[in-house]
Amino acid sequence: MVFLYNAAAASADIYASLLASELPHLRFVSNPQSVDPAEVRYLVTWSVPADVTRYTKLELLFSTGAGADQFADVPLPPAARIVRMVDDGIARMIQEYVTLAVLALHRDLPQYLRQQARGEWRELPPRLAQERQIGVLGLGQLGQAVLESLKPFGFRLAGWSRSAHAIEGVKTYHGQDQLHEFLADADIAVCLLPLTPETTGFLDAAFFASLPSGASFVQLGRGRQLDQQALITALDSGHLSAAVIDVTDPEPLPADHPLWFHPRVILTPHIASVTQPRAAAKRIVDNIRRHESGLDPVGVIDRTRGY
Amino acid sequence: MVFLYNAAAASADIYASLLASELPHLRFVSNPQSVDPAEVRYLVTWSVPADVTRYTKLELLFSTGAGADQFADVPLPPAARIVRMVDDGIARMIQEYVTLAVLALHRDLPQYLRQQARGEWRELPPRLAQERQIGVLGLGQLGQAVLESLKPFGFRLAGWSRSAHAIEGVKTYHGQDQLHEFLADADIAVCLLPLTPETTGFLDAAFFASLPSGASFVQLGRGRQLDQQALITALDSGHLSAAVIDVTDPEPLPADHPLWFHPRVILTPHIASVTQPRAAAKRIVDNIRRHESGLDPVGVIDRTRGY
Repeated sequence: MVFLYNAAAASADIYASLLASELPHLRFVSNPQSVDPAEVRYLVTWSVPADVTRYTKLELLFSTGAGADQFADVPLPPAARIVRMVDDGIARMIQEYVTLAVLALHRDLPQYLRQQARGEWRELPPRLAQERQIGVLGLGQLGQAVLESLKPFGFRLAGWSRSAHAIEGVKTYHGQDQLHEFLADADIAVCLLPLTPETTGFLDAAFFASLPSGASFVQLGRGRQLDQQALITALDSGHLSAAVIDVTDPEPLPADHPLWFHPRVILTPHIASVTQPRAAAKRIVDNIRRHESGLDPVGVIDRTRGY
Repeated sequence: MVFLYNAAAASADIYASLLASELPHLRFVSNPQSVDPAEVRYLVTWSVPADVTRYTKLELLFSTGAGADQFADVPLPPAARIVRMVDDGIARMIQEYVTLAVLALHRDLPQYLRQQARGEWRELPPRLAQERQIGVLGLGQLGQAVLESLKPFGFRLAGWSRSAHAIEGVKTYHGQDQLHEFLADADIAVCLLPLTPETTGFLDAAFFASLPSGASFVQLGRGRQLDQQALITALDSGHLSAAVIDVTDPEPLPADHPLWFHPRVILTPHIASVTQPRAAAKRIVDNIRRHESGLDPVGVIDRTRGY
């Protein structure tokens, strides 16, 4: 039984040695050319491998990231299951990034950076955290972790997701019917939604128009959710005051794209969360053990919902 | 008995109406020309008033800020006591600012901003919070509040102050003897020290040289503590990776000062904490009540130490 590793070469040794000690019945292979595809039971990858249909006995395909949308339309063998990376390290990095982004927007950092660029010493009127509502879209593990991080600062907290959730200290909304009401009070909206057919293009002109005047926006979902031109238009009109963007379409964003240079945008190159190889390898070993004991892996994708 | 208000005109009504309802035996005056100086018992001010010696019966001088160093060498009547603003609102704003600054430095925001300015999509190697030690200088109310805010992120935490403190989860150091050892492990150093004769010029070339290579720095103390040229030299040499600066000398910083335009500096115009007038007026009323009952006001300055 082969464990095929098709991810960053720099981390291959970490996986190989953990597998040798924890799951010695598996053979670790990092070169797809050196294995009979029918032997591969487990596959670790971020990108979709060439000719994936040849892995006829594949049982689990592990994405190295928190998302697995790249595999949505891939013709895998029917028995193969897709497992995304669910790791405390990812959640901690997302908590750091969202707290940084929300505090930067709350304390007017984009405007202070513009003033700094022209040597202008001018205090802006501050708002108290309790006067500001943060609205988080997506209430899975990451959304809930982010709300937990924001609690100590005293912001008013709200959350929206496809299905109903109850979270202490958070005003929750769900479904398309309650979206407009949720957005109308979101002074800072944070997108943590997975990419699905329903969320593709979801962050459009109507979405931004639903936010209150002067609102700001943090995008940590996936690039294809966002209509980048609609965002720029909403910023230029003054309806939105600023945005922090970590994912774009395409990635990398071309060096001459206007989003890089918009004065109200802070843009980072998809770094909000980076999988730590040691932690990721441990999660994958744990999930193979669960699978071989007849349990569902943690993070298995419901292919009917797409996440 | 006169309560003389010598601060922001926009907030005068807030003080006047609170005083009328809470301390009706005091007469509220906001124009120094319209009062006999010998009647003034209480004075609220940020700047040092002209000819302060004429307030011969002054009992309490209230600073509207968290610091009161501007009154250190002022020839006040011997019985007058100086009271700085101790308010939960100040602590909350400082917690926001320091968390923002520390996360920005931890997640390489200054370098990502430089890359953004040239349209460069490049991921920088991340460090985990537990691999990073945050060293806070100053362990009073604000320093302790800041350490509390940083705890949930999993940073290693250390603190230094003039006298010994014990704080759960924080490695504490004190006195000049332990300063070097404290700085040697501070990956991100945060200055929250008051301005005193000992801390004037304290943040100098030797201070920055004591920090580990690649360290970064957050300045929320007072401008005169920092040798701005020594900071620029440490940044230019690469020994320091970045700095977030909220206070300068002088203030406002002249529009052509090089600190504004240093690519490794984020500079804000002394806005980390802004006193909220309603909360401040309430604290001052409470302190007058304490004083008139024979208790020490909260935030009274020990004029032998200077804070």
